[in-house]
Amino acid sequence: MRTVGTLLFPGFELLDVFGPLEMFGALGDDYRLEMLAERPGPIESRQGPKAVADVALAAAKPYDILLIPGGRGTRREVDNAALIDRLRRLAQASDIVATVCTGAALMARTGLLDHRKATSNKASFAWVVAQGPNVLWQPRARWVADGKFYTSSGVSAGMDMALALIAALNGDEKAQQVATYAEYRWNSDPDDDPFAALYDPGPS
Amino acid sequence: MRTVGTLLFPGFELLDVFGPLEMFGALGDDYRLEMLAERPGPIESRQGPKAVADVALAAAKPYDILLIPGGRGTRREVDNAALIDRLRRLAQASDIVATVCTGAALMARTGLLDHRKATSNKASFAWVVAQGPNVLWQPRARWVADGKFYTSSGVSAGMDMALALIAALNGDEKAQQVATYAEYRWNSDPDDDPFAALYDPGPS
Repeated sequence: MRTVGTLLFPGFELLDVFGPLEMFGALGDDYRLEMLAERPGPIESRQGPKAVADVALAAAKPYDILLIPGGRGTRREVDNAALIDRLRRLAQASDIVATVCTGAALMARTGLLDHRKATSNKASFAWVVAQGPNVLWQPRARWVADGKFYTSSGVSAGMDMALALIAALNGDEKAQQVATYAEYRWNSDPDDDPFAALYDPGPS
Repeated sequence: MRTVGTLLFPGFELLDVFGPLEMFGALGDDYRLEMLAERPGPIESRQGPKAVADVALAAAKPYDILLIPGGRGTRREVDNAALIDRLRRLAQASDIVATVCTGAALMARTGLLDHRKATSNKASFAWVVAQGPNVLWQPRARWVADGKFYTSSGVSAGMDMALALIAALNGDEKAQQVATYAEYRWNSDPDDDPFAALYDPGPS
């Protein structure tokens, strides 16, 4: 059995969290899902609905997969030094670290993405890049794997990345079964990024 | 501003709920999202993570859109006469009723889908059909609209249906903007159902 720990913070993006968890959760007892936050309890998403964090970030044990969502709340949390410090330690101790959308900005702030390839959503790309000037940011990628770090593009790309992780850990056939169960058309090519055109690097 | 009321029950499917809510929530103040359940409080999903219901089903006011997810918990709730009765009254009073996956089984039990076209997920199709023998079940459809009732196929199909509702209520351009925001490849053709082959009607 593998464990997936998902970080919640006020203003997290709903689908960044629950898209990947749908996929991991489809495998039943193969994955155990744990929700964590600085302070356990109900955490309000960017869209309003609340999810419950059962574990305090400070008390979290290392995970097989540590999942970091994005959302408007990341704009505040990148400057939350205590959270970034705890996140760094948990990420170092965990087997795999996976970010969705602007979750990459939080991971970039830990320094652990330095000199690694990574991506993020395309609409907020310039802001995310500014959070980690030493990260090898990829402007065209549905998701990127570099060592134990998986980073995906915006929102829905998290589902494609989660299926890629299931393929890596449980085999391609299992990943296809999960996509079929969820009636999801898996974009299984990490280089197929139809939303990259949204990225305009602008004057630098 | 439109209101979306989403029913939670123990064993709801995560993406049935949070896929559509990602789409409605992307429009910011255009939609207000409310979570309801027989008893307010944290409700455990089929996959484990809990979401919070703020409103009791008995106290819910009619919604612009009433959203009914599926999930393993529907197997129990179809026999919950009190819930089905309250759901019938709330659905009658609401402008639009939208179901995802086996959420159609709950709506079928209210009788309100009788003599209407509807669909559900394909892996559990025979069980859903048995919950409403007078419903005009469509074995091949990503989603179906009949009057104010929208029913979608399994899990991910709820996102396509939600975007179709946004297109109907806010215009095509807005729906495309939301899909782009969520970096989601919208399957905008309700008749394009790549998962229908999973449905084997078997001996009848």
